[in-house]
Amino acid sequence: MNKVDLNCDLGESFGNYTIGNDKEVIPLITSANVACGFHAGDPVVIQNTVARAKTHGVGIGAHPGFPDLQGFGRRQLDMTHEEIYSMIIYQIGAIQAFCDLYDVPLNHVKPHGALYQMGAKDSAVAKVIAQAVYDMNPNLIFVSLSQSHLIEEAQKIGLQTASEVFADRRYEPNGQLVSRKEKHAVIEDTNEAIAQVIKMVTEGKVTATNGEDIHITADTICVHGDGAHALEFVRQIRDALSAADVRIVKLGG
Amino acid sequence: MNKVDLNCDLGESFGNYTIGNDKEVIPLITSANVACGFHAGDPVVIQNTVARAKTHGVGIGAHPGFPDLQGFGRRQLDMTHEEIYSMIIYQIGAIQAFCDLYDVPLNHVKPHGALYQMGAKDSAVAKVIAQAVYDMNPNLIFVSLSQSHLIEEAQKIGLQTASEVFADRRYEPNGQLVSRKEKHAVIEDTNEAIAQVIKMVTEGKVTATNGEDIHITADTICVHGDGAHALEFVRQIRDALSAADVRIVKLGG
Amino acid sequence: MNKVDLNCDLGESFGNYTIGNDKEVIPLITSANVACGFHAGDPVVIQNTVARAKTHGVGIGAHPGFPDLQGFGRRQLDMTHEEIYSMIIYQIGAIQAFCDLYDVPLNHVKPHGALYQMGAKDSAVAKVIAQAVYDMNPNLIFVSLSQSHLIEEAQKIGLQTASEVFADRRYEPNGQLVSRKEKHAVIEDTNEAIAQVIKMVTEGKVTATNGEDIHITADTICVHGDGAHALEFVRQIRDALSAADVRIVKLGG
Amino acid sequence: MNKVDLNCDLGESFGNYTIGNDKEVIPLITSANVACGFHAGDPVVIQNTVARAKTHGVGIGAHPGFPDLQGFGRRQLDMTHEEIYSMIIYQIGAIQAFCDLYDVPLNHVKPHGALYQMGAKDSAVAKVIAQAVYDMNPNLIFVSLSQSHLIEEAQKIGLQTASEVFADRRYEPNGQLVSRKEKHAVIEDTNEAIAQVIKMVTEGKVTATNGEDIHITADTICVHGDGAHALEFVRQIRDALSAADVRIVKLGG
Repeated sequence: MNKVDLNCDLGESFGNYTIGNDKEVIPLITSANVACGFHAGDPVVIQNTVARAKTHGVGIGAHPGFPDLQGFGRRQLDMTHEEIYSMIIYQIGAIQAFCDLYDVPLNHVKPHGALYQMGAKDSAVAKVIAQAVYDMNPNLIFVSLSQSHLIEEAQKIGLQTASEVFADRRYEPNGQLVSRKEKHAVIEDTNEAIAQVIKMVTEGKVTATNGEDIHITADTICVHGDGAHALEFVRQIRDALSAADVRIVKLGG
Repeated sequence: MNKVDLNCDLGESFGNYTIGNDKEVIPLITSANVACGFHAGDPVVIQNTVARAKTHGVGIGAHPGFPDLQGFGRRQLDMTHEEIYSMIIYQIGAIQAFCDLYDVPLNHVKPHGALYQMGAKDSAVAKVIAQAVYDMNPNLIFVSLSQSHLIEEAQKIGLQTASEVFADRRYEPNGQLVSRKEKHAVIEDTNEAIAQVIKMVTEGKVTATNGEDIHITADTICVHGDGAHALEFVRQIRDALSAADVRIVKLGG
Repeated sequence: MNKVDLNCDLGESFGNYTIGNDKEVIPLITSANVACGFHAGDPVVIQNTVARAKTHGVGIGAHPGFPDLQGFGRRQLDMTHEEIYSMIIYQIGAIQAFCDLYDVPLNHVKPHGALYQMGAKDSAVAKVIAQAVYDMNPNLIFVSLSQSHLIEEAQKIGLQTASEVFADRRYEPNGQLVSRKEKHAVIEDTNEAIAQVIKMVTEGKVTATNGEDIHITADTICVHGDGAHALEFVRQIRDALSAADVRIVKLGG
Repeated sequence: MNKVDLNCDLGESFGNYTIGNDKEVIPLITSANVACGFHAGDPVVIQNTVARAKTHGVGIGAHPGFPDLQGFGRRQLDMTHEEIYSMIIYQIGAIQAFCDLYDVPLNHVKPHGALYQMGAKDSAVAKVIAQAVYDMNPNLIFVSLSQSHLIEEAQKIGLQTASEVFADRRYEPNGQLVSRKEKHAVIEDTNEAIAQVIKMVTEGKVTATNGEDIHITADTICVHGDGAHALEFVRQIRDALSAADVRIVKLGG
């Protein structure tokens, strides 16, 4: 029987600013990527998010990003490898502290935003990120873009990886995501998106933009909690997975 | 034989900005209070500071402060107790991560600047700070102003404490420091300051501003690494302590 | 015929974070207090807010606050008078630049949050704030809590002032707002709140908590744009003011 | 008779952190590039720097940079053109405010660090930066790397420009600076550096790395105030310029 994880970015609020419907999406997912206070999140938000994830039995992950709250970690920042390494240690440590406080394990790490994008494309950056995660705790599951340098470098180093796929994004023939700058980057039709998810999870294949089926590893599906539509979409994915006899299980479970 | 610890704030540099002579003062001290990235320090600085402290066999402490780099954590900020609690967990977690990385224990926690001052005077704030430290790790040594609410609340909660004294500050008859706003707050004469230190450590007494000797607990002496004079002063304190047969030993040692 | 201004805090979004319904509330108000990037707002948000205020013919004001995004400027920060002075100059300058860019005058300044609260209660802080505004431009209208030290110091210095009142807050017999920590701080009943507004504007009086009518100057009413209820409340205030033959006119108009 | 300006980055301290010897270098220069609080500087530092520049009759310039204090504005940040435009307006406005306060004109703008580097190489970014400066005030002098896209775009738009040269940097045959990643990027020999300056200013030529003389426009020389050596080097440049009958005059003077 096939299985898959549903992961979602949580804890992205900051002080008086709110992003996401954490309360509503958390019962629908199996893994939470918790913002660490650099691109989003603050200590109170992190604490509440970890507590909530524990209550719902959701796997907790650190979601380190660039120190750029204004850009939400989505703007590439030309940090040195040394700076990237140290900031990942720091951010994982912050989330680990709250996990210790609530006596719940830190389960995974997923790089965020521009850090994720840079690592996916640049093997040297990918190696630094993976090394920092490994050095903190070699048992952490490393979540990143399927078929990317991040997954490759993490596996080389000996980390357990979880390859991430996207329900509503189209794929290039080489397995990479179609850039958001392209017209057809996003699948607008819900049924088409759900069909893609089921195919990725049950067959390990996705139909690329050239019409050919390519191999893809789908350990975890990235979902979102922003807006009513997003929540409904997660529910539809869950229903379709169940109908296809796919178990929804948290990473490592 | 008497013993005492010498503690110093380290890792206060930030990016391109440098504060302190960490390299020069670290061989002279036994405990390092490492800034956690809120009032000072950044991930690279923290990593280098923890590595250096390990090399020198110096006890490592987290030095949490207000999120106010511009004010260096010295400006009182009206945070809620919940905010204070979470930010202390966060900051200790960050330092703990680098200690784990270098396989060296986190030995103590000392609140910084305005957080230290608020906790010293306000038992409710003191309790929140002590509780956060205890909840993170009940074996951490809690370093704070001798005879203050911080020490009192930490002891109530079951933490091991280390009472901090200052060589060059004058004391009120009630055991509190004379405010820096007062003329005679600081002892300018080196010999007088050193005599005060020796008396505090060997006799457990200090001569208050009214001329009377009062009791004071002196587990650790706060020293500084800024400037050539500061370093020379630490050396003189060390010499005087040795001459008085006081062993200089790190906290808990 | 009586007249009054309706002011609202605008431009409080930051990067990916949104606060307020600026688009919907701006047609209903006559003055906009634009966050300056310290407690809220960023350069793009400021530019868009100034442009929008110009389009709607709304008076533009700088809304300086403490450098505390996480606390939204609502946490008291123990800055020196020198620091407060300089940061107000800085923040007004930033808004002035965008006003110059769109060739529209900067009309007023209203301190924000904890800075407003501190100035209202502490005449020395009030004087510093008023002096900074005066030194930047003596023709700026100074908006602050009616009957407060802020208004008093601004008038002493020669600034034109606009006394601000709140529709839904109760008043102490001495003219100050009932603290939000008190049970009855806020008027929950819309009709009661609107009746209070009309009385303040048309009679210059408000019924204090002890049941007695006290004098109050009501040059401008503080309204909010957060949430559907807030917008509806502004519409009701506008209708009630019109019914009472009160003209709604921007400050200085 | 030839003339040239000597410009230096000033006001780079932040809160408790100090960078540069502003007091000592300011009598030696004719133009000050004042950090605007994004990559360095804070409101108090800006105010003191503008006051000091006025006292010494030094031309005041805004020195806008990326919002990255930790990276000192030297790390490329992938901001949108809209974000770059608005942040330049904001930063110029902040400096303009302090110029207004001291009744002294804002004379020039020089982009800082990674923003300067990006603009020098990328004509689209250069155009955005130049446009923001022009829109704020078309009379501002635009200071940037000689022979770069920044100078070209600023001239196209109608801004008066000042081409900047470096005493101790080597030049490529195409007029660009040799990258700091190259071995021979910096001229270590003081006499050689000074000879290069004199040649650039008096002949409008520089000997490129291939040994050939190329044309270079030298309106202003970038000097530094960090360290005793830097100050001594500025004095030597001044002496050599005087000996070569070059007047040292502030931009636009």
